[in-house]
Amino acid sequence: MANTYNICLDIGGTKILGAIFDADRKIVYRLKKKTKKDGDSSENIEKVIISVVEEMLKGSGIPKNKIHAISVGAPGVIDQDAGVVLFSPNLPWRNYDIRTPMEKQFGVPFYIGNDVNVGVLGEYRYGAAKGYKNVVGFFVGTGMGGGLILDGRLFTGNKFKAAEYGHLILDPEGPLCNCGQRGCLEAFSSKQGMSAYIRQQVSRGRECMLADQVQEGVFKSKYLKKALSENDPVTVEAVDRACHYLAVGTGNLINTISPDVVIYGGGVIEAVGDLFLEKILKEVDRYCMPSIRSTVELKIAALGDDSNIYGSLAMIEDADKKKK
Amino acid sequence: MANTYNICLDIGGTKILGAIFDADRKIVYRLKKKTKKDGDSSENIEKVIISVVEEMLKGSGIPKNKIHAISVGAPGVIDQDAGVVLFSPNLPWRNYDIRTPMEKQFGVPFYIGNDVNVGVLGEYRYGAAKGYKNVVGFFVGTGMGGGLILDGRLFTGNKFKAAEYGHLILDPEGPLCNCGQRGCLEAFSSKQGMSAYIRQQVSRGRECMLADQVQEGVFKSKYLKKALSENDPVTVEAVDRACHYLAVGTGNLINTISPDVVIYGGGVIEAVGDLFLEKILKEVDRYCMPSIRSTVELKIAALGDDSNIYGSLAMIEDADKKKK
Repeated sequence: MANTYNICLDIGGTKILGAIFDADRKIVYRLKKKTKKDGDSSENIEKVIISVVEEMLKGSGIPKNKIHAISVGAPGVIDQDAGVVLFSPNLPWRNYDIRTPMEKQFGVPFYIGNDVNVGVLGEYRYGAAKGYKNVVGFFVGTGMGGGLILDGRLFTGNKFKAAEYGHLILDPEGPLCNCGQRGCLEAFSSKQGMSAYIRQQVSRGRECMLADQVQEGVFKSKYLKKALSENDPVTVEAVDRACHYLAVGTGNLINTISPDVVIYGGGVIEAVGDLFLEKILKEVDRYCMPSIRSTVELKIAALGDDSNIYGSLAMIEDADKKKK
Repeated sequence: MANTYNICLDIGGTKILGAIFDADRKIVYRLKKKTKKDGDSSENIEKVIISVVEEMLKGSGIPKNKIHAISVGAPGVIDQDAGVVLFSPNLPWRNYDIRTPMEKQFGVPFYIGNDVNVGVLGEYRYGAAKGYKNVVGFFVGTGMGGGLILDGRLFTGNKFKAAEYGHLILDPEGPLCNCGQRGCLEAFSSKQGMSAYIRQQVSRGRECMLADQVQEGVFKSKYLKKALSENDPVTVEAVDRACHYLAVGTGNLINTISPDVVIYGGGVIEAVGDLFLEKILKEVDRYCMPSIRSTVELKIAALGDDSNIYGSLAMIEDADKKKK
């Protein structure tokens, strides 16, 4: 085992992160690539994975026969046991067995899991949630994802669909969410939710540093950080509202699970996590039972953008353990 | 084992249900008793259990040496492993080791668990949730309790405090709950929540068949049934509101856990469960993701008032299995 490497990928709607880990879990090679947004068929995504892996092998100089396994985190509902993507909102995959062609292509085991589930697994195994047993993870980015570790194992529920915290309804009469529901946590607390608030305020004639960006879609997290550092009033309101509902959602998860720790990760948290945590901590006590609150910690993810690729590594290690 | 009996108790704030099961899990003797509401110290509650068990032995004619174990479901936060009541809202128990004196008294193993957790366990093992793997249970009575079976095991979270679904916040600006939060599910959908709504409407000059009862506290479930059968308008509104929020809460739990089945039990459901389920089914699709909704069933508890004592029996059987 000492001389083997694992290739771990984080496939998003707009970018791919890749890392090669050595046997000591050190990242010896990295790759970051934009993906085309439209027009990719399943086959093309497969080709993208193949080309990225080939590029990583070439760039690192590591020979193919030193690779132990390949593992991927991707958005959507994913049958981790079978390596089948059941549904992916941003990628053109439906009931697609990606394991078989990938294992044929590379001749090594191939694993795939939901990106946020895998990210929370990464934080549990190697990051902020290490050493805890029951972990709730909120990942705040363009949307809002969730993950759940129970009794030390990733819990995926019936048909791998658990932990959709982004679609907890916190106000049945609230704003429309992408999913068709009203008042979902995602509609308040994700970049989409904050953008919608800012757009609404701008359309009422108010000024906002993020106005141009939100008109085109969703702002980048680094610009959120900048607007907050300059105390842009509309941005501050959007963030206060996001943190308020994230505190309510956190309270509900605390009352439901009684976890040991709640962690916050994702692009928004990577950029402005300390401020988010401060605001959530100010409010959360009001939204959960004191007795349960007293035994849970709230923390920022420790692995930043790498939560996911470390989780992919954990998937490989878990599968190895099962084989023994 | 063929000749042994188990004594199972359901200790509520106002009544105790008792059953003696034979080795074939048949109930061979039953007892129902009111408890005094006020002024009972821990010691007195212990005396109540002792006197009830003694009464059951006497009434059934079963000799003490034929008893295999005694098991109890009670409200509160209970360390099932240690047999310690950490906290009980309606009973005067704090960090109270009840196992030791009870095992000393009767000379057989004694088990205790949270009443709703135990009730959901009963439904999972012998009732409506039998054969499923992941189960969410809402128990609707004076208050609102919850239970969670994950991968076939009762999940109690950190310090035995999980599944407080009654205190999910569904409207942060909503009515005050007993727990001090606002807009909890319990504040809308329990008998306390429905009573508060009826009291409010009566105070505005409206008539209601349950008016006298709610002025004194909380109505009895059988009178709720009667008022509904006569289409009493304020009662119907209170129930519609209760079912609306129960549908939202159910949706949130579906999105969080992706369970195989959601079951509804407790006194209100025992009385008017079919109507509740019908109303919840009409609304719930709006409050959870269609893909997750498609793989979960919603059902009424099958064991009625006996969910809890069957769950207590399951605690004994689980402990026996562990010992082997």
